[in-house]
This record gives sequence, structure tokens and C-alpha cells, in this order.
Amino acid sequence: MHLREETVRSELIFDGKVVKLYKDEARLEDGSIVNRELIKHPGGVCVVPIDNEGNVYLVKQFRYPFQTELVEIPAGKLEYGEDHRQCGLRELKEETGAECDEFVYLGKLYPTVAYDSEIIHMYLARGLHFGEQKLDDDEFLDVFRVPFERAVEMTMNGEILDSKTQIALLKTKILLESKQ
Amino acid sequence: MHLREETVRSELIFDGKVVKLYKDEARLEDGSIVNRELIKHPGGVCVVPIDNEGNVYLVKQFRYPFQTELVEIPAGKLEYGEDHRQCGLRELKEETGAECDEFVYLGKLYPTVAYDSEIIHMYLARGLHFGEQKLDDDEFLDVFRVPFERAVEMTMNGEILDSKTQIALLKTKILLESKQ
Repeated sequence: MHLREETVRSELIFDGKVVKLYKDEARLEDGSIVNRELIKHPGGVCVVPIDNEGNVYLVKQFRYPFQTELVEIPAGKLEYGEDHRQCGLRELKEETGAECDEFVYLGKLYPTVAYDSEIIHMYLARGLHFGEQKLDDDEFLDVFRVPFERAVEMTMNGEILDSKTQIALLKTKILLESKQ
Repeated sequence: MHLREETVRSELIFDGKVVKLYKDEARLEDGSIVNRELIKHPGGVCVVPIDNEGNVYLVKQFRYPFQTELVEIPAGKLEYGEDHRQCGLRELKEETGAECDEFVYLGKLYPTVAYDSEIIHMYLARGLHFGEQKLDDDEFLDVFRVPFERAVEMTMNGEILDSKTQIALLKTKILLESKQ
């Protein structure tokens, strides 16, 4: 590790409900000082729920930064310190009403490495059993299902743009094919 | 589109070199008002460079939010209004020294849909010709190459965590396999 940047100053600019923003100064390996803008977020969990007929459950919801509806897999924000497996099972239940027999860790992703320390964990859920959808008070979303290969096609052709959804679906495809 | 959130107030909290942070109020479809924290960023471009021997060029650089080196494909930030194809060709040249005969658009990703409007465009570069690496003054990175299937393995096993790199490599794998 010869490329380290050492923090020499850190200022909390904004302490929000969702993000914290810091303005830092860091020393590079050549001794020069650079500014670093840093977002902190508690992170999240997303789940690829596949039923016994090979359909995947997707959610469509309005995403404020893009002023449009986006198609995603079920997901939610971690509380600080919360176990991501438990959070994933809870979000799956809340958004789709499903519990599952099999819950396989697919790894994690760093959405925005240059300026945001958020981490998202991914799971594959199979053996689904359905109860009732139970959303948060300020959460509005539509759940629908498509054949898994159709969701992969939506990722390849740009109908699915969200990063966690693209990665989790493509990793699932490669994982399932490797087991055939 | 029945899930719209209408902006009723927007306050610029921080106007940085990399990000802008807004604190907005939006009206939900049931009439209630919610706070929305919004990051704006000019977006970026990333490139999967594959040489005639089937190796992919990767870069390893220190990423401040994670306080460690991460493995990524070559990438760079767009200037506001800049053409993403030109930006991708420039970043490929700057970070690896390569020009290419073939530059195929792989689509885009939204890294952080809940609170950040950043968009990253992805390209596949083939038919590489090499000149000299030319980095920005505050940019320090190591370039190395691995067989393409090894890079896919690094994505599947968690050695590669960056979202744009995971998506661009997995989309490339599926695209190249579909053409075989």
C-alpha cells in the first residue's frame, strides 16, 4: 500500500437523516494537500427473490434524484450496526410479503467509490412463501414479477439502470449457470 | 406514473468541487411533505479495455472513502456538458496509454438511486494500441492486466467491489458470450 492519503483535517458540513457530508483535507504520498469531499451513509441490503417458477420479484418506485420511476430489486437501508442478513430478510418481507427457505449471500458493492463510503450487501432468496406486503409510511412502490431471464435482458438493454439491481441480477445469472 | 414526488422547496447546502448537496421538501401523492437529501455530481465514464490476447486492463488506486486501494476499470469524471464517448476515450488514453479501434457503448448505471443523481456511462474498448500513460496531477494509480475471465472471477468472489467495474465486466462477459 504505497498510495495512501492521510486525513489531516475533517469538517462535518451537513448531518442529515440520510447522509452526512464531510469536507476533509488529506496529504498525498508526495506531501501535497488535497481537498476530499466525503459522503457517509449507513449502507443497505438488496435481495433477488426468485420463486419456484423462476420468476424474479421487482419493485418500481419513484426515485427523487432522477424524477422518475425506476425498476429495482427489493432493498432497504441498514440501521447503523444492524446485521445485513436480518435487514435483507426484513426488507424482502416488507416489500414483497415473502419469506424464504434459502437466503444466499452474493457479496457486496461500493456504489460510488470516489466520494461516498456507502456499502450495499446482496442476497439471493429462493423457496418463497407469501404473506402480506407491509411498507413504511412514506414508501410507495409497485411490486411485479417477470421471468428471471427477462430481468437479465432488462439489465442488458438499459431498462434496469440501478447499480445494485444490475450487479445482483448479473451475479445471480452467472452463479446459477455455474451450478447447472 | 402515479408515484410522483413534487419538489416544493430546494435549498443548496454545499457547493463543492465534486458534489453539490441540496436539502429539498417534496409532496407525496397522498399530500404529505417529506424531506429529501439530494447529491448532484456531473457523472462519469468507465471503460473495459481488452487487448488482442484477451487481457483486461485494471487500475488500482487509493479510494479515500474506504481508506484503502480498490481495483477498478479505467474511469473518469465528466465535465458538465461533455460528450461521454470523448471523455471515455480520453480517460482510457490518460490512465492506460491506449487508443482503440473499437469503442462499444455498454449502457449506463445509476450508482446511488435513493439520494444521488450521478450517472456513469460504460464502454468496451478493443483493438488497443499503446502510447504513454498521462495522469492528472493529483492522480496516483497502478495499471495492471489480467485475463478477462480472471477479472470476472474477481467480481464474483469479492476482490472487485466498485459498482461500475462489477457491472461493466459482467455485461461484457454476457455480451461477448452472446456473440460466440
